[in-house]
Amino acid sequence: MSHPLRIAIAGLGTVGAGIVRMMATHGTTMAMRAGRPLEITAVSARSRGKDRGVDLSAFAWEDDPVALARRDDVDLVIEVMGGEDGPAKALTEAALAAGKHVVTANKAMLAHHGQALATLAEKNDAMLRYEAAVAGGIPVMKALTEGLAANGITRVMGVLNGTCNYILTQMEEHGYDYESVLSAAQEKGYAEADPSFDVGGIDAAHKLALLAATAFGTRVDFDGVQTEGIEQISLADILMARDLGYRIKLLGVAQMTSEGLEQRMQPCLVPAQSALGGLQSVTNMVVIEGDFVGQTVFQGPGAGEGPTASAILGDVIDIARGLRVPAFGIPADRLTAPNRSADGAAAAYYLRLTLDDTPGALATVAGALAAEGISIDQMRQSEPDENGALVLIVTHETGRAALDRALNVITQSPVSLKAPVALRIENV
Amino acid sequence: MSHPLRIAIAGLGTVGAGIVRMMATHGTTMAMRAGRPLEITAVSARSRGKDRGVDLSAFAWEDDPVALARRDDVDLVIEVMGGEDGPAKALTEAALAAGKHVVTANKAMLAHHGQALATLAEKNDAMLRYEAAVAGGIPVMKALTEGLAANGITRVMGVLNGTCNYILTQMEEHGYDYESVLSAAQEKGYAEADPSFDVGGIDAAHKLALLAATAFGTRVDFDGVQTEGIEQISLADILMARDLGYRIKLLGVAQMTSEGLEQRMQPCLVPAQSALGGLQSVTNMVVIEGDFVGQTVFQGPGAGEGPTASAILGDVIDIARGLRVPAFGIPADRLTAPNRSADGAAAAYYLRLTLDDTPGALATVAGALAAEGISIDQMRQSEPDENGALVLIVTHETGRAALDRALNVITQSPVSLKAPVALRIENV
Repeated sequence: MSHPLRIAIAGLGTVGAGIVRMMATHGTTMAMRAGRPLEITAVSARSRGKDRGVDLSAFAWEDDPVALARRDDVDLVIEVMGGEDGPAKALTEAALAAGKHVVTANKAMLAHHGQALATLAEKNDAMLRYEAAVAGGIPVMKALTEGLAANGITRVMGVLNGTCNYILTQMEEHGYDYESVLSAAQEKGYAEADPSFDVGGIDAAHKLALLAATAFGTRVDFDGVQTEGIEQISLADILMARDLGYRIKLLGVAQMTSEGLEQRMQPCLVPAQSALGGLQSVTNMVVIEGDFVGQTVFQGPGAGEGPTASAILGDVIDIARGLRVPAFGIPADRLTAPNRSADGAAAAYYLRLTLDDTPGALATVAGALAAEGISIDQMRQSEPDENGALVLIVTHETGRAALDRALNVITQSPVSLKAPVALRIENV
Repeated sequence: MSHPLRIAIAGLGTVGAGIVRMMATHGTTMAMRAGRPLEITAVSARSRGKDRGVDLSAFAWEDDPVALARRDDVDLVIEVMGGEDGPAKALTEAALAAGKHVVTANKAMLAHHGQALATLAEKNDAMLRYEAAVAGGIPVMKALTEGLAANGITRVMGVLNGTCNYILTQMEEHGYDYESVLSAAQEKGYAEADPSFDVGGIDAAHKLALLAATAFGTRVDFDGVQTEGIEQISLADILMARDLGYRIKLLGVAQMTSEGLEQRMQPCLVPAQSALGGLQSVTNMVVIEGDFVGQTVFQGPGAGEGPTASAILGDVIDIARGLRVPAFGIPADRLTAPNRSADGAAAAYYLRLTLDDTPGALATVAGALAAEGISIDQMRQSEPDENGALVLIVTHETGRAALDRALNVITQSPVSLKAPVALRIENV
């Protein structure tokens, strides 16, 4: 058996401690699978004294993560500190510059600095891997860069944030409104005290940007992701969607249209009978469509100590075996700058309007849609009350730009009492 | 860019031609992903003159597949001839012995000769890969050997035969009986004229044996798979299962019990709301459970030209990149001979009995079960007719050996008019 792969871990929170625990449990089997021993040599974290429930006494300690990255007895650095800039980035840069491999779970850092870091890795003949950053324990980056690498990828979709899916599932199952489910999720620890990163779609958009770059050979373009959160979703939307045979998911979609790359992270309606529609609670799902393979679906835990440790150590075993794959599947200098598709692919939409209870209100809406060539498939109006009348519309297929123009006309007319909500119906 | 990987294709049926087509379509991208050109140099098939709809003029032709495997201008052989012995095996052995890599879709050959072929590959420093042999286009062998390699695998399950799942789905959806769906499937080309390989569970059992060996580090033990087909499944079973909240699937299950390795390919009841229960038509699904990652689910097309070509060329790209992983995840000489678990894990069972319409018939059944300590959870009896009375029973958890003893007593008693059907209820 050849020489050991010497590993440093930067960050000893739940995930870092989980990695130490998983190596203690399965180190022998992992070495047999990797063809060589895997050995933690050094660790770094903010507080040395803290009890983390794992024995760290055999490992060298560094207070400074950059010093950790530069140690002579380290071949590979696991970065599980988090944060898009600051120490995580400094550590990653130092390690790659020294020709050491980096395995990270840091989606924010890669969404913002992925191109520069991939370039740095290749220049120094080091690997940069991040399976844990996208859909947690599901080996989906591996499927995209390796298993399905012979395909032209046509579309990638994903439910990539467990908190959002938990909230939407609870609303439907129990008939709760958004605010009360969010509070309950915060109490259970499923949602952060400041939930905007999750429910606003930012966390999921980071992951989608990484999937899209890898699927389409484009530079990571996080700013090009059209991102909407689930804060606007009401119980009425969920119940109406159910009546129509759909479920609402915070769904990431990346596809190459004739106008360029479309990247959307938005609440969408998907058929209740589809794999995406059936996904409940905190579980994640990624759908990859290739021109030869057709549709493949990957489901599993998207977060947590065990799944994250599993994904990180899967990457480590790959590197120990000698796998060499560029961070985004092709060399960083071959990644192209994506044209952003402003309009995206045509789709049907679900609209929720709150209108003044006056004669002609519906005519105003229908006229605004008709003026943009948008026809109505279904419409439902609730009994008006003191807040006005709720009008739910399903359109036939339309471009998004035309829809936005029509919604703008409606919003600015006196009959509209609240900003309209428009949700895409994704054809999955 | 380094020297090209020179590829030979043995077998030019639908899949072989599909591989030629996929390389013609995506060769440039594949080379960029692999880091080197991929180049078909030679091909072999039974009939040289046949029109296969692809241009073969640039490739050398060999009538003899073994001669193909020995050519100096070949680094890797793709075997898509099929057949567990004969030319496919001779070609594979010749290629590996000459230090050439082999990528194959041949589940039957690997289920019977996997150990010997893996040993031969490692002795000659060649790779033997077979993603296409298990669940077609879904990169599930890769997930097991690489992405999830840091886990202790606790259970692998799979719906691995599209024909069987199509038949069972059609029976439920349309209320047809087994024979008429099978005939229709044969007309549509979903089932072979001799369907026993599919509906008898043999094809799926080949795949399960490969999954089990890889998951548990054991020698391939196809003879150890307890295999039952779907021929016994009646519409009454499917409707009763549905009433109880289940669907019937031909389900492969491999798990390590305290007694040893359990490998079963049998019709089972799974919860209708589970991912496995929701799987419709010809699609395949594999569920992999690891001690750290939890449950992961992989779904996609299990057969066909495009999906098979996708899986084979994914393996080819891996090898071109320099990936080195033993055929079953660990070196062949480290695979252990599995103890077979005779009884398997305890489970609840669904029983269908056809009893004589006499007083005391049910008492005989209840007594036989009680004598083995098996208690009844639910029971339903149909109106008796000239064929006797149909009695459907769901038991509480029991070992299989105890159940078989009880069923034996029932079968040999005068009240039993037909052999009982017993289906396991799998806890997914």
